[in-house]
Amino acid sequence: MVENNLEQKNIKLIIAYDGTTFFGWQRQKDKPTIQGTVEEKIAAMVGEPVSLIGAGRTDAGVHALHQVANFRVSSPLTPPIFFKALNALLPASIIIKEAGYVPIDFHARYDAKSKVYEYRILNEDLHSPFLRHYAWQISRSLDVSVMKECLQIIQGAHDFSSFCSPGDGKINPVRTVIQAELEIEKGDLLTFILEANGFLRYMVRNLIGTIVRVGLGRLSVDGFAEILESRDRRHPGAKAPPEGLYLKDVKY
Amino acid sequence: MVENNLEQKNIKLIIAYDGTTFFGWQRQKDKPTIQGTVEEKIAAMVGEPVSLIGAGRTDAGVHALHQVANFRVSSPLTPPIFFKALNALLPASIIIKEAGYVPIDFHARYDAKSKVYEYRILNEDLHSPFLRHYAWQISRSLDVSVMKECLQIIQGAHDFSSFCSPGDGKINPVRTVIQAELEIEKGDLLTFILEANGFLRYMVRNLIGTIVRVGLGRLSVDGFAEILESRDRRHPGAKAPPEGLYLKDVKY
Repeated sequence: MVENNLEQKNIKLIIAYDGTTFFGWQRQKDKPTIQGTVEEKIAAMVGEPVSLIGAGRTDAGVHALHQVANFRVSSPLTPPIFFKALNALLPASIIIKEAGYVPIDFHARYDAKSKVYEYRILNEDLHSPFLRHYAWQISRSLDVSVMKECLQIIQGAHDFSSFCSPGDGKINPVRTVIQAELEIEKGDLLTFILEANGFLRYMVRNLIGTIVRVGLGRLSVDGFAEILESRDRRHPGAKAPPEGLYLKDVKY
Repeated sequence: MVENNLEQKNIKLIIAYDGTTFFGWQRQKDKPTIQGTVEEKIAAMVGEPVSLIGAGRTDAGVHALHQVANFRVSSPLTPPIFFKALNALLPASIIIKEAGYVPIDFHARYDAKSKVYEYRILNEDLHSPFLRHYAWQISRSLDVSVMKECLQIIQGAHDFSSFCSPGDGKINPVRTVIQAELEIEKGDLLTFILEANGFLRYMVRNLIGTIVRVGLGRLSVDGFAEILESRDRRHPGAKAPPEGLYLKDVKY
């Protein structure tokens, strides 16, 4: 037997990507995904398969400004080499922003203390041809003040069962929302910023979709609070489309 | 013979489009173009072929914030109907911003007094996955002051032969530059704004490409002035890529 005497190293990547043309983060057979694409390029560099752990498993069409991922290799290639070569090898829709060593037991997903997501809405009469993949375009006017009341309601620890994916039945549905804000730019670009110690699958999109119903006057703030309190996984949902969602930061 | 007793009307459209997936403005057989796509939808509405005249014939990958176009029809459909129906029928990459009647002899191209183009450059170390189709991404630092000197030089009436397409041999190459400015946002997004009474084919992209050579220190401001003065159509050129270019306005 040949002994592998190369020490294993753990390398962390900060990745930004335009999720438009990908079937989400998670590796899938025969479909382009972020994880699959980056793993393939790393494997081509080191000559063996690698497993890339991402902090957030973004869905199809969802973007990342700052995804954190790590992989373990025995290769002597250094982070600056991975940084340069991966940026040369990857499609222009995926950018490695940083690469560096981390302790061997660092795990991008399990070690994350909180994640920050951003959700962008263009609230203009006319859609923009340039934002069709980058924001949810809503022509009817949204009432910002009632949407902000909803954001107040979700602050802190709550059982978010009403806003999770129906498939998430066995997961503890309590999450702590650390930050829930709405920023307005030029009067028509609304950016929701949500930070929590973790998110259930589709939680951001279900929350935003339901808050938008409040903003459109189709649901009251009290109605929103009732949905949250009902902890009802069968909540019919009003899932916001993926193109407005960005993984913005991961904190450790 | 059936007499066509419907009066012809001339309808003007203001159009914004993301040029990424199109082979430019001008109709081409078997290739998606802006003109071809919009003509097809109008024809479907009025039941006969129409000819759409655009103010600027943008090239493949070039965008428009405000393209002006007109078409003549005998159809009784009104501009608000065209506005609504075209926005419903067209792909999300083409948006009709306005529709209205104009005098029957209005011609979007011949009547234009000036056109304004914008060219966007992202001058950051790292590329952005979100701007790969919407700006020229240049990692090496650009010297803004020398590029502004070049913009001073092109102001006014000049023979722009050095910056035209080799195929433009028979066209009068004198154009009057009314405005030539460089705006800087957040330190790394550079926007050139060029207004002229008309532009030769590839003129903006050849000018920007050559000015960027000055900004990179590969050509002096004097060298730039000499190229302009040489009026040499065989100028090797340094054509900037299409994705940074936007037709921004057309003035009548």
